Amino acid sequence: MNYRMIFSSLGTVLCIEAALMIPSLMVSLIYNQNDVYAFLISMVILLAVGCLLHLLKPKDTQMYARDGFAIVSLSWLFVSVFGALPFLISGAIPAPIDAFFESVSGFSTTGATILTQVESLPRGIMFWRSFTHWVGGMGVLALMLAVLPSVKASTVHIMVAESPGPNPGKLVPKIGQTVKILYIIYTAMTLVQIILLLISGMPLYDSIVNSLGTAGTGGFSVKNASIGAYNNVFAEVIILVFMLLFGTNFALHYQAIKGNIRSYFRDTEFRFYLGLVLVSILLIAVNITGKVFGSFWESLRHSSFQVGSVITTTGYATADFNLWPSFSKAILVMLMFIGAAAGSTGGGIKCIRIILLIKVMRREVYKIIHPRSIYTVKINGKAVDEDVLTGVMAFFYAFIFIFVAALLIVSLEGKDLISNFTAVTATIGNIGPGLGIVGPTGNFSSYSALSKAVFSFCMIAGRLEIFPVMLLFAPTFWKRVNI
Amino acid sequence: MNYRMIFSSLGTVLCIEAALMIPSLMVSLIYNQNDVYAFLISMVILLAVGCLLHLLKPKDTQMYARDGFAIVSLSWLFVSVFGALPFLISGAIPAPIDAFFESVSGFSTTGATILTQVESLPRGIMFWRSFTHWVGGMGVLALMLAVLPSVKASTVHIMVAESPGPNPGKLVPKIGQTVKILYIIYTAMTLVQIILLLISGMPLYDSIVNSLGTAGTGGFSVKNASIGAYNNVFAEVIILVFMLLFGTNFALHYQAIKGNIRSYFRDTEFRFYLGLVLVSILLIAVNITGKVFGSFWESLRHSSFQVGSVITTTGYATADFNLWPSFSKAILVMLMFIGAAAGSTGGGIKCIRIILLIKVMRREVYKIIHPRSIYTVKINGKAVDEDVLTGVMAFFYAFIFIFVAALLIVSLEGKDLISNFTAVTATIGNIGPGLGIVGPTGNFSSYSALSKAVFSFCMIAGRLEIFPVMLLFAPTFWKRVNI
Repeated sequence: MNYRMIFSSLGTVLCIEAALMIPSLMVSLIYNQNDVYAFLISMVILLAVGCLLHLLKPKDTQMYARDGFAIVSLSWLFVSVFGALPFLISGAIPAPIDAFFESVSGFSTTGATILTQVESLPRGIMFWRSFTHWVGGMGVLALMLAVLPSVKASTVHIMVAESPGPNPGKLVPKIGQTVKILYIIYTAMTLVQIILLLISGMPLYDSIVNSLGTAGTGGFSVKNASIGAYNNVFAEVIILVFMLLFGTNFALHYQAIKGNIRSYFRDTEFRFYLGLVLVSILLIAVNITGKVFGSFWESLRHSSFQVGSVITTTGYATADFNLWPSFSKAILVMLMFIGAAAGSTGGGIKCIRIILLIKVMRREVYKIIHPRSIYTVKINGKAVDEDVLTGVMAFFYAFIFIFVAALLIVSLEGKDLISNFTAVTATIGNIGPGLGIVGPTGNFSSYSALSKAVFSFCMIAGRLEIFPVMLLFAPTFWKRVNI
Repeated sequence: MNYRMIFSSLGTVLCIEAALMIPSLMVSLIYNQNDVYAFLISMVILLAVGCLLHLLKPKDTQMYARDGFAIVSLSWLFVSVFGALPFLISGAIPAPIDAFFESVSGFSTTGATILTQVESLPRGIMFWRSFTHWVGGMGVLALMLAVLPSVKASTVHIMVAESPGPNPGKLVPKIGQTVKILYIIYTAMTLVQIILLLISGMPLYDSIVNSLGTAGTGGFSVKNASIGAYNNVFAEVIILVFMLLFGTNFALHYQAIKGNIRSYFRDTEFRFYLGLVLVSILLIAVNITGKVFGSFWESLRHSSFQVGSVITTTGYATADFNLWPSFSKAILVMLMFIGAAAGSTGGGIKCIRIILLIKVMRREVYKIIHPRSIYTVKINGKAVDEDVLTGVMAFFYAFIFIFVAALLIVSLEGKDLISNFTAVTATIGNIGPGLGIVGPTGNFSSYSALSKAVFSFCMIAGRLEIFPVMLLFAPTFWKRVNI
């Protein structure tokens, strides 16, 4: 392991985090609340630690896969720890574990909160909370790759470790260029959403903060009642559409910008994702009509928003789905596991993996019928490498494995199984709300410090897709020898 | 597809089922209750239909894998349908769907019941109900292979389709001989248990019926309160030990009989299984002490029985674990999924698969650290074929896939999620009781006919390990051409 390189990179990341606090500082200056000093002190600490770590120049600048994974896992841990400083110093969140939880929840784009009164937060702090979603959505290290002047080819390992999906693609041959393009698309889409929300009649501050939360598919909102507080159908439609767009593979958006609008519908994953959304919306709308809402249209409105919010793992709400019938809840929990498309800012297992798993399953069935034939699994007409398939399958167990372990530890508290089960689902899938006490109108504040630590672990593990985090527990990972 | 061969085999199976009703008929004659005619009429119907189907002699006697799978899946369906006749004709269970559910639950060794008053059943009917566990545990078709005089080598496909576990082994070169040995061990162990229960002071009838339920890891009991009704610690220990023995790979028992007692502890799966049992017992005992039972010993007594019952997927109970703390319930639900050892009479995913999945997961982690190395997954020192690994992984998704589909349909009723979730777990894992309304003191009677049909499907799918049943839904499976 190349420790010098790892710590030097961590230093760079912390310096970038200090810079990332500037917009929040400006917001707090504009509203002139008591959170200005919180940002200033945090930035000084970040720059001090960052520069100190950065002094450790690596002797060997060649990056191996393990170094990439270590840099990504540790960066996310560091960024979350230091990102909690403004919450703590401003006194907005007095308990360190709560501040850490909220920071992890922000960067991992989960949107689970320990706050019982969101609306009483200072404006700058609230902005920072949602801004972490925006940074976390596209990736903290992707940002580093995008802004650093010289990016070596071997830093592809960082991109592999941080990007969601089984097979992260490069849009253009150079990595630095690829992440720059991704960040430009991301920023442009965010700006368009802000403008549209302003047109819908939402105040400027709310439009910006809610767009940051949408872009990262995070879910932190300005209001306790989330998007439901505005009771603005136009704004709901805008947010729904943008949630779905941010939950789509950005490579498709890039193709669309280049003129290939059709590439969306040529993509197997996008068709699956859209189909799943439409079917779920319809099933839930039918299920809740008459039981929760009087008219079918009212049901359709809330069904579509909640489905879009859950499958993209955003976690915004316009209705308390915790009170919906079992069938609707079962569908929503299923969508929480499935999650958004690979290469998007969303979380969960990802649609492409579900498609591959179904194809592998079908192949086993056909193998029984025709034992001597050979089958290759194909996506978009191209054969998928067996190694990728094994990786996808192993990811699935690793996910389940972490899930079960987390559930057992959290269950020690004696809270009800539904709350515990969906709280783990909502954190490992980076969704935010679950059912029961962590439902759309609830929060995570009543859990113990141990459980909050477990949830924080789940959020980072979920965001980095398990393996980079699991590596940290493998003893051989820490050996100094490079093989 | 060789339809003639399939229907001819189904005929043989139904004739064997008629013969299997003789012991129950004798019991009903001894107790001289009103269920004698129910058995006689059922036997006449079985023989008539069986002989008629048997007349369809196959032109081609070569059996292919797909024929084997079709014979197994359809046999289990037919046997369950006709096995419901005594319940229906005697009037003990008036509704056809309920009688079918109870019959499937018996043969699949699940032990889930729709009866609210078990104790009011006629003695012969109750015997039949538990006898189906005994037959289903080792396999309906294994019995056919064991009793038929000439067994061709190609019938190995039947054994593969019916035996639990990823890699069913033959004890001796000939299949007919292997299943005979298995049935002898099985019968001997059952007899020993009956004798020991008699010594413990349990009445003869109860000793027999409860032993039949233990042997098949089924769980139907003589009493509403299951084994708890006897409040007999000696009997509980006997049943616990035998549940664990019947949940062990029978190949190990065969080795032990040949003198290799050590082979138990040389087996990776057995060590995992035993370790899991011991750790779970201890964790739950600590968790419930003071909360459910006053003393640690009382907690240990009930913790060990329930853990043994759940991991072997038997489903007997001495305490209502539905009332235990969340942590204990979470462990029990986890054990329901894991299940017993492969090559045993138990259900669930099976320990060996969990071990393989963990090894595959670890391999992926090491691949990231050392990308150029090649790793083979080993069990008991031997490399596992990659095809077996893919099969195991695909099994896992197929299991989850059926699970989710079943959960969604069952959720349509609007019952609470915990009951629905554990009811599906308890049926697909062939356990019996779950939590909530299907807890150890509850039953499945309040579910709708649709849900009961879904549960019945889950029970057969679980017992046959998903793929033979999934095949029935593959259109190419039904094509007449043999490839």
